[in-house]
Amino acid sequence: MSTVTATATATATTVGLEARIRQDPGKFRVMTGDRPTGPLHLGHYFGTLHNRVRLQELGVDVFVIIADYQVLTDRDVADRLGAYMEGMLLDYLAVGIDPARATVFNHSAVPALNQLMLPFLSLVSVAELNRNPTVKDEIAHSRQSAVSGLMFTYPVHQAADILFCKGNLVPVGQDQLPHLEVTRTVARRFNERYGVVFPEPDALLSDAPLLLGTDGTKMSKSRGNSIALGADADETARLIKGARTDGERHITYEPETRPGVSSLVLLAALCLDRDPHAVAEEIGGGGAAGLKRTVTEAVNSRMAPIRARRAEYARDLGYVRAVLRAGNERANEIAAATLDEVRGVMGGRF
Amino acid sequence: MSTVTATATATATTVGLEARIRQDPGKFRVMTGDRPTGPLHLGHYFGTLHNRVRLQELGVDVFVIIADYQVLTDRDVADRLGAYMEGMLLDYLAVGIDPARATVFNHSAVPALNQLMLPFLSLVSVAELNRNPTVKDEIAHSRQSAVSGLMFTYPVHQAADILFCKGNLVPVGQDQLPHLEVTRTVARRFNERYGVVFPEPDALLSDAPLLLGTDGTKMSKSRGNSIALGADADETARLIKGARTDGERHITYEPETRPGVSSLVLLAALCLDRDPHAVAEEIGGGGAAGLKRTVTEAVNSRMAPIRARRAEYARDLGYVRAVLRAGNERANEIAAATLDEVRGVMGGRF
Repeated sequence: MSTVTATATATATTVGLEARIRQDPGKFRVMTGDRPTGPLHLGHYFGTLHNRVRLQELGVDVFVIIADYQVLTDRDVADRLGAYMEGMLLDYLAVGIDPARATVFNHSAVPALNQLMLPFLSLVSVAELNRNPTVKDEIAHSRQSAVSGLMFTYPVHQAADILFCKGNLVPVGQDQLPHLEVTRTVARRFNERYGVVFPEPDALLSDAPLLLGTDGTKMSKSRGNSIALGADADETARLIKGARTDGERHITYEPETRPGVSSLVLLAALCLDRDPHAVAEEIGGGGAAGLKRTVTEAVNSRMAPIRARRAEYARDLGYVRAVLRAGNERANEIAAATLDEVRGVMGGRF
Repeated sequence: MSTVTATATATATTVGLEARIRQDPGKFRVMTGDRPTGPLHLGHYFGTLHNRVRLQELGVDVFVIIADYQVLTDRDVADRLGAYMEGMLLDYLAVGIDPARATVFNHSAVPALNQLMLPFLSLVSVAELNRNPTVKDEIAHSRQSAVSGLMFTYPVHQAADILFCKGNLVPVGQDQLPHLEVTRTVARRFNERYGVVFPEPDALLSDAPLLLGTDGTKMSKSRGNSIALGADADETARLIKGARTDGERHITYEPETRPGVSSLVLLAALCLDRDPHAVAEEIGGGGAAGLKRTVTEAVNSRMAPIRARRAEYARDLGYVRAVLRAGNERANEIAAATLDEVRGVMGGRF
């Protein structure tokens, strides 16, 4: 993927941070996760899953939360939660998350994590929560008519997610930086007021470029415009065939002016680990049909081993559930220890 | 106390509710409680403790929460939490809360209660929380410079306190009605959206008149102007001696124009179970000294058996702690059962 970093955000901080991670990976605990609102897709794979596995392979302690509680932040009903959670576990295992080294758990199985919500809520002001631009944006895209208290306090809940296990490294997109800033503020104020318990986590800015969905808008697991990791080769071909392109026969990589075509080119390039401009040039005058053929082959070939592993795990759901159970146990132990520490410094009872 | 109801708030609803409670007390579960921010005092006794015992004696299932988590809503530090909690337990037992019939527990010992916070937060809007006049008022009297997220979401947390055990009766002052309205809204919306789990609790409006502190302002356990239940006869005498009165020698009961004097008259009347006007008339030209002598005798005589029981329990703290432990166990069982039901109707995981 190094060939596409030219198109991506990479701050000096992140570059320095990467060096520190490589130097001493054992000092870092990554906290990431997903809300079980639909199947994980190629956008997740190249945007974050791939990076989680990379960090795990470097020797970083990786925590992955299935944020079942947070499904309600932007919708009223938590549909098909069980099915989505099972699918996510299959995806994690298939892409290479190794339960011997990483911890996968779900929110509602770790009540002690939620216990942090109350002291943490006391450390941020309503004015600060109101200022959070990401919450403002998510509110604008929410399926709800009014802003719920859950949406409003979401960054504080996220602080509990990250800090309960003293996560000190959080992979984020640029748009999530204000959220992480709330976590850093909570950690800093807690430490100042009661005694040092929490790290102030660093943001590990993603260098993954944005993949669009087959309809030309942001690929989203709840918009029906994505190619799921669990899709088979035929379904992949069908979805790519239906993707929006444009009338221009000559294929180029120009994300600003040709978003549909360029996103397909980018997808092929990511799958082939090549530069998107080179991929576009190779397709040249092959038109949308040629482009889609290239993309389909690239995706299916890249995903084949992942899908094979996914199918294997799907035949052994007992094992998959045991992975979650073990992760939940570990998360509960850590949460209990952190809560003990919090109660200790806060004066006994919290 | 029936003689003082003329001065008090008693709505038609409350009157009808009282009749229903007397008719079938087993149908009601009362949820009340206190924040451990200082020793309970005479204002608590006549304002609420007395009523809790009355309801318990009627056969209502009484739940009393020591809201240790909520101490932080209006202050930064939870000072002397352990000592205040122990004192409260002594007070409850001394006034007649019977652990064989009532359940006393503390917030932080019941994590499953907090689990309800997230789905409940999703059921109220930020606009609704902003409108709550009681929160506005509490913010004005808070020791904090900015409104914290905890203060802002306090009514939702209170909904969890009440609904986790399906409390359907909440003794409140007029000023707390908007809070209870949030609880009723949460219960109603939850039931509509997911299935009927929660009652919409009724407000049992207090008919206790307001006792002022010895400085003429609202008696408050954190203002140092109150007579604690645990105070002895000498301390009581000293505190009443220092109470603010006025220059008028003739004692009358005129709360509007003579708040200091009238509050002392009221205190004597409450202790003697008499009408405050009659008490004032009896003191007549005895002046502040005569008034204070009457009040001191009335308080010390009324409190004597309570203080004796309190001292007895204080010699057996092992028993006192066992009462809390048993209450916490019962509260945890109930919270787990409610959470199971909530998860059932919400689709498995919440």
